[in-house]
Amino acid sequence: MTTQRPYATACHFAKGHGAENDFIVLPDPDGQLALSASYVARLCDRRSGIGADGILRAVRCTAAPEAATMAADAEWFMDYRNADGSNGSMCGNGIRVLARYLVDAGLCLPGTFAVATRAGVRQVDVPDRSPTFQGPVTVAMGRPELPGTTGIEVVVAERRWAALHVDMGNPHAVAFVDDLDHAGDLRTSPIVAPVGIYPLGVTVEFVVDQGPGHLALRVHERGVGETRACGTGACAAVAAAMRQAAQPGPARYIVDAPGGRLHVEVRSDGAMFLTGPATIIAQGTARLTF
Amino acid sequence: MTTQRPYATACHFAKGHGAENDFIVLPDPDGQLALSASYVARLCDRRSGIGADGILRAVRCTAAPEAATMAADAEWFMDYRNADGSNGSMCGNGIRVLARYLVDAGLCLPGTFAVATRAGVRQVDVPDRSPTFQGPVTVAMGRPELPGTTGIEVVVAERRWAALHVDMGNPHAVAFVDDLDHAGDLRTSPIVAPVGIYPLGVTVEFVVDQGPGHLALRVHERGVGETRACGTGACAAVAAAMRQAAQPGPARYIVDAPGGRLHVEVRSDGAMFLTGPATIIAQGTARLTF
Repeated sequence: MTTQRPYATACHFAKGHGAENDFIVLPDPDGQLALSASYVARLCDRRSGIGADGILRAVRCTAAPEAATMAADAEWFMDYRNADGSNGSMCGNGIRVLARYLVDAGLCLPGTFAVATRAGVRQVDVPDRSPTFQGPVTVAMGRPELPGTTGIEVVVAERRWAALHVDMGNPHAVAFVDDLDHAGDLRTSPIVAPVGIYPLGVTVEFVVDQGPGHLALRVHERGVGETRACGTGACAAVAAAMRQAAQPGPARYIVDAPGGRLHVEVRSDGAMFLTGPATIIAQGTARLTF
Repeated sequence: MTTQRPYATACHFAKGHGAENDFIVLPDPDGQLALSASYVARLCDRRSGIGADGILRAVRCTAAPEAATMAADAEWFMDYRNADGSNGSMCGNGIRVLARYLVDAGLCLPGTFAVATRAGVRQVDVPDRSPTFQGPVTVAMGRPELPGTTGIEVVVAERRWAALHVDMGNPHAVAFVDDLDHAGDLRTSPIVAPVGIYPLGVTVEFVVDQGPGHLALRVHERGVGETRACGTGACAAVAAAMRQAAQPGPARYIVDAPGGRLHVEVRSDGAMFLTGPATIIAQGTARLTF
């Protein structure tokens, strides 16, 4: 591992989004950047920083101690951080935006390739088209785990809903509601009961069934707040809907988030594939002093 | 005037802020950029764009038809746009951020220089220090106009306050309140009565008197929404406080906004000087397609 330099000096960045779930990409092929939680939070601040739901540090697996065991399977590791500076394991829209960046920047060829994450290696697909700057990007999200935990409830103001626990590499509590407005303004975290069931926090989905194969949702992400879309959240919502309907795969779902439309394909073995827009809208150099 | 090119292609930008009132600077020395309202709104979107309270297009007066008559007095014209795409006349923090940019970019020398705005020519002062990237920047804001309009009220939920009309090149309604929380969440515009008194909208200040020469405020800016600070708003609040106290100049005020501290000096002739932090935190290239 090379010596890490602090982030007090200028650093290169890109900004992109998938269905308005937005990220700052920090290319760091040789793993030289020491990324503190406070620097992440400052960079993600929408007024005094660049502003984003999270940061995607792109580091070669061979240069990332956390990803060393995945180096045979993937060239790049997604070091994902939430806007509050905490580490994230997996981010469905984030990895799609990172894949778009890697292809745009000429660091990966278009087509299918692997990206390492803290939740394991994921396959992404960036179709070969010219220009490559737009169009859908797909990521293999793996199989959801629904251990059937009972008694979980989501509470907002006077309302409470039973919630399904879904693990997508990160924990989700999915509540089916009649109206997305019932989630309130989501400036603060919804209460998840019983207290202490998620000691490290949980991402909460409020989901409305729009008809066969069609969901709409709002999401409050652990470590971020309300986001305009959430990839693991879309998959968790589909997993919960299929469990509730006792529906086996295969299936195709449309998931409408406030920031755009995502598509979730569920294969017969339960594996999920998330597809949606991913675009890089700016690149440059950040200079935040401390 | 040269031929204007549409903004569908890549364009250079900088992002900066003054007390967390944040702006995208678009350097356009030769006035070649056709900046549509929809492009401004997209660029200012905090999820799908870069995100900012407004845009500062920096164009030489000789290349800006609007500023041609000011070309003898100022080299640069600040074409200020609100986040919704509407034209703005004057922006106290924006002009300080623009001045910082012009010095950082080597387009102006440190010290005092003139910048043209839709409200006329303003003098700015960027102290010569090394590095120049931080530290206070001052702008001469001119004299407020308080025509003594009566009967204006600001209404939020169940509460209503008498408001003073102050013109700082743009219109302000200043209400003195006991508690800044009484302004509510300011996601929507406060109601200003009587209906229709500001047909083009108004910026509203909620101000708490913190003691001699010390105010705290929150601001809902016309065409933007709540901002973390507002330069013309700070000056309007000071003008209203001095009028209410029947206090003549000179005076020095501290004005605490949610995003930081601003200083307002009022000279004996009533002229106001606004000082506060101004920093450029990123530069790069934006690529938004339509």
